[in-house]
Amino acid sequence: MTEMTESVPGWLAPDELESVRDRMPILYVDAVPVRVDDKGVVTHVGLLLRIGSDGTVSRALVSGRVLHHERVRDALVRHLEKDLGPVALPRVPLSPQPFTIAEYFPTPGVTPYHDPRQHAVSLAYIVPVAGDCRPRQDALDLIWFTPEEAASPSVQQEMTGGQDVLLRQALAHVGRLP
Amino acid sequence: MTEMTESVPGWLAPDELESVRDRMPILYVDAVPVRVDDKGVVTHVGLLLRIGSDGTVSRALVSGRVLHHERVRDALVRHLEKDLGPVALPRVPLSPQPFTIAEYFPTPGVTPYHDPRQHAVSLAYIVPVAGDCRPRQDALDLIWFTPEEAASPSVQQEMTGGQDVLLRQALAHVGRLP
Amino acid sequence: MTEMTESVPGWLAPDELESVRDRMPILYVDAVPVRVDDKGVVTHVGLLLRIGSDGTVSRALVSGRVLHHERVRDALVRHLEKDLGPVALPRVPLSPQPFTIAEYFPTPGVTPYHDPRQHAVSLAYIVPVAGDCRPRQDALDLIWFTPEEAASPSVQQEMTGGQDVLLRQALAHVGRLP
Amino acid sequence: MTEMTESVPGWLAPDELESVRDRMPILYVDAVPVRVDDKGVVTHVGLLLRIGSDGTVSRALVSGRVLHHERVRDALVRHLEKDLGPVALPRVPLSPQPFTIAEYFPTPGVTPYHDPRQHAVSLAYIVPVAGDCRPRQDALDLIWFTPEEAASPSVQQEMTGGQDVLLRQALAHVGRLP
Repeated sequence: MTEMTESVPGWLAPDELESVRDRMPILYVDAVPVRVDDKGVVTHVGLLLRIGSDGTVSRALVSGRVLHHERVRDALVRHLEKDLGPVALPRVPLSPQPFTIAEYFPTPGVTPYHDPRQHAVSLAYIVPVAGDCRPRQDALDLIWFTPEEAASPSVQQEMTGGQDVLLRQALAHVGRLP
Repeated sequence: MTEMTESVPGWLAPDELESVRDRMPILYVDAVPVRVDDKGVVTHVGLLLRIGSDGTVSRALVSGRVLHHERVRDALVRHLEKDLGPVALPRVPLSPQPFTIAEYFPTPGVTPYHDPRQHAVSLAYIVPVAGDCRPRQDALDLIWFTPEEAASPSVQQEMTGGQDVLLRQALAHVGRLP
Repeated sequence: MTEMTESVPGWLAPDELESVRDRMPILYVDAVPVRVDDKGVVTHVGLLLRIGSDGTVSRALVSGRVLHHERVRDALVRHLEKDLGPVALPRVPLSPQPFTIAEYFPTPGVTPYHDPRQHAVSLAYIVPVAGDCRPRQDALDLIWFTPEEAASPSVQQEMTGGQDVLLRQALAHVGRLP
Repeated sequence: MTEMTESVPGWLAPDELESVRDRMPILYVDAVPVRVDDKGVVTHVGLLLRIGSDGTVSRALVSGRVLHHERVRDALVRHLEKDLGPVALPRVPLSPQPFTIAEYFPTPGVTPYHDPRQHAVSLAYIVPVAGDCRPRQDALDLIWFTPEEAASPSVQQEMTGGQDVLLRQALAHVGRLP
């Protein structure tokens, strides 16, 4: 999950966020970007490619905090634009109901999801993107995988914090679990 | 719900359908056409306007049978194109999970849904349409209503067979129930 | 929504909660207690009865914060036991997917939900309770209503913060919207 | 999927069913029996054990047709009682919304689901059973598996018609996909 660095007035400054993080669950959104055919069948899943300071490759979903006085669907659009660029043309789901929630615990093993920094509860959505994706910020690239590729061990093991499980849950929800 | 009149080889001829109708549930799809804003908020619901042989006005969802060897998402597209025309550009849901099912019974009162002709079980989906809608077949027009208008008594009482309930269920699902 | 007053070590003390409340969304759960028949049909909805300091009567869903390092399903059980007593025997949903989310904004009108104290995002679940309910804390009583009664204007207008809408969304989800 | 042999008046006789089967989709329900802990976490999945006439072992979900003038929830109870015995105490889901639909096509490869006899569209539900299960009819036994065991290759390959996929979709829906 992406570290946030906003310091907009009215929002939590980084140091304040730090002091809250060990006291209460932080609300996140996770978005699974997908390409669909003209019948709504998911043909590809988009994963962000990141390279750690130690050179390790990881693949990630679009993810980030919901801010104070921000609607969940506005947070989704903000994070999708931040990670996929301004012309990705994401189609935010009509229903506010997430397909699942991911409870990232600082302690591994409580749930399938883990975030060493904090207890984050993420609302997870599947989002078709119709436009061009131009990753920004700390992502090197966005790679499109078929459902079979995305669920394969080689891709799954490059995902961290349980996002491999979350991705397969998304595939199951759209009827594309291999 | 629209009467089907297909006689394509391999499908049920009208007289065969008649003989089956009182013997087993018939699989249908119901589609609620909607307009959405760029954040995915439903702004309008589309209802077909029909005038009965006795002059009564009724408003209806897009609805019809699923045929043999037809995927549910193909049935959705076929009925949407049949009722809204070829350039409506419907966005079929990614997930095969309907937001609810509507069990139309020939006997009133068993469920909120009623179809005097048959026992039909309908998979109900909410479908954004982005293009121009040009109603065809027996529909006179497609009228767009705000959620408030669509849930108002004057519109609700022009819907039949329990589709007024189904429409409000759709509004509830997208967080737009007035 | 119920005010929390925990001061368990590791959790937010009331004054800390106060300082966070205007800075980030607070994660809540809402539970709609229901009675069901042996086929799973919802026959009654349970609403807490509260009397304000000014004597006004209000009716409420079971509601409360999710604490740090607490699973959502544990928070559900905790709040249900707190409000309904120890022998209510709630059946927590199998799926972590809420039937909807309610975004309570401190500013009225952004969403249908409003909480003057804070921006709270609530995961909403429908929970069958099979045992005896003995309201505790600040609730005077728990009253069971049929779906028709629960959706009636007289009951709906006694609910606050948009919980009237949330209740009708719950009824829609289980196919019991009048 | 279990072959039905009812000949109750008003329902389809076996020979009539045969003649309809190649003409229209047949409505089914699939039920995934589960055991849950007191927080609603799925701990075990129940699979029926069947031995074919050629001695092959297969494992199956509870499955069967919806009859004319039968509610989906009544069909669920009927098939659960038929396959698990009269004291299984199934808790039928409150919402009529299935967690997914399975489209069994007579032609392999159209969807992940296959039924050589017919085009069946199945509404799939996850059903906690709290009582004793005593398999009847053509099932030898009901075996309880942990989610990890149920998703393992050795169990998955003993399931037919795509029910291995459907089972993993159920596990994904309840947050228990290994």
